[in-house]
Amino acid sequence: MHLPLERTIAYLGPPGTYTEQAALAYVSWVTKGTGHSVILCPYPSIAQTLRAVAQGEAQLAVVPVENSIEGSVAITLDMLWQLDALQIQLALVMPIIHSLLSRGSLSGIQAVYSHPQALAQCQGWLEQFLPNVQLIPTNSTTEGLQQVEQDLTAGAVASLRAAQLYNLPILAKAINDYPDNCTRFWVLAQRQSETDYHQSSLLDTHTSLAFNVGANVPGALVKPLQVFAQRGINLSRIESRPSKRALGDYLFFIDLEADVNSEPVLSSLTELTAYTDILKLFGSYSVLHI
Amino acid sequence: MHLPLERTIAYLGPPGTYTEQAALAYVSWVTKGTGHSVILCPYPSIAQTLRAVAQGEAQLAVVPVENSIEGSVAITLDMLWQLDALQIQLALVMPIIHSLLSRGSLSGIQAVYSHPQALAQCQGWLEQFLPNVQLIPTNSTTEGLQQVEQDLTAGAVASLRAAQLYNLPILAKAINDYPDNCTRFWVLAQRQSETDYHQSSLLDTHTSLAFNVGANVPGALVKPLQVFAQRGINLSRIESRPSKRALGDYLFFIDLEADVNSEPVLSSLTELTAYTDILKLFGSYSVLHI
Repeated sequence: MHLPLERTIAYLGPPGTYTEQAALAYVSWVTKGTGHSVILCPYPSIAQTLRAVAQGEAQLAVVPVENSIEGSVAITLDMLWQLDALQIQLALVMPIIHSLLSRGSLSGIQAVYSHPQALAQCQGWLEQFLPNVQLIPTNSTTEGLQQVEQDLTAGAVASLRAAQLYNLPILAKAINDYPDNCTRFWVLAQRQSETDYHQSSLLDTHTSLAFNVGANVPGALVKPLQVFAQRGINLSRIESRPSKRALGDYLFFIDLEADVNSEPVLSSLTELTAYTDILKLFGSYSVLHI
Repeated sequence: MHLPLERTIAYLGPPGTYTEQAALAYVSWVTKGTGHSVILCPYPSIAQTLRAVAQGEAQLAVVPVENSIEGSVAITLDMLWQLDALQIQLALVMPIIHSLLSRGSLSGIQAVYSHPQALAQCQGWLEQFLPNVQLIPTNSTTEGLQQVEQDLTAGAVASLRAAQLYNLPILAKAINDYPDNCTRFWVLAQRQSETDYHQSSLLDTHTSLAFNVGANVPGALVKPLQVFAQRGINLSRIESRPSKRALGDYLFFIDLEADVNSEPVLSSLTELTAYTDILKLFGSYSVLHI
């Protein structure tokens, strides 16, 4: 095991996104007290961020996996299954606090720009305070900020960091409809990587895997779940995704609250192969609240 | 039971969307040989389409539920749970064939507009034939067509019907990456409605329900699933959605391949209440391939 002196971390950009905020928190945690330097590199999509690591352009990727209000980030799960080359190193859980940024006044706003998930998370607030404005979807929470810089009648839903970075006034803080708004991110590396990126004493408390159960028979999902239940292994999450072969054919993504190297998990995985068509392991890791 | 003489059907608009195409196919099927008239009324969002029926503005709603490539339409499931007033009348399964529309030539296109799901479904084609264009998300597959009408350097991913309706040239047909691209739609009415909207002899082959399992203990989901497996009832789909209370707290949406009035389903629902916190039934219905 070795800790590389310089690493590139790919993240879903551009600068000012919540993913950049998570990546920065990870960097500050991982480099604390060491002389290691890190290059943060923004990518325009989750697919490109993950491919950068699969192809060796970057050593680590930080991407969102799940939001407590809007649910799974489907492309992250789909790419993890398709690339079949990445391993989860760490999960990061970060509170999401949306703000409304604009150079104009609240009464003058005619259009609000943001990522569709961010607009959805502030739907109630926007309906109450800006009932007649046009909501314009963008590819990221920062993409609309250029518009806001030039146009007094434009607003954007973005982070406080984006407000600082783009030097934009904050018209309203914490406008999300649900106060318990958190996003979980994954830090990923190449599967074959022998690098200990964290050199930390954190225990691996979670294991992620996915499988296809093949034929759509009664109880096809019950048996795989029983394998874990019988051993007292808690599932913190189960998510179905289309296999993209036919409507009604699914992959199941599961998070276990256990280390893959513990005896119950090892024996459950051996048994699981009997009930699954394809089984993929995405690693064991700990969860860091940032 | 009575069949109303005039009905308003709310759908996710504007005209030219795939949902309008599904609604039109439903209307042509349901009014065949009858003198009944139907008013199709477009709404700008799925939430507003479903609220129109919950509030009695329209008798029926047609909304997308699931695509074979991109998966669930989360807002449809979330609204169904929240409104708690709607019942599924029928499922429609429709093949989705995306086309590229533009007044210019392929080599001159600089930006492609469409709904993020449609852009995602043509990602491979767009990367191959238009690698350097900007992909611009819109609220529906037809919202970008105004831009395409005015600008020779703009293209849009939309349906053949949209090309007809807006009188736009088709540059490429069937550009979706996966040929088996289908979307499932639901036709919904108010739960208390006594109207037999179809007056058809179709059998109710599917039942949809959702529940919250409460405490996150090992096997919390195994027991509800066993209830169905023990009775030989097949689950055609299971989908988790955040309860929006905390990260890691979920609702489960399940489709059974059985009629709610069959004895095995009735007894399974009675047993299910012992393992669930809240249990909501969304009706039994048949599936129509259009």
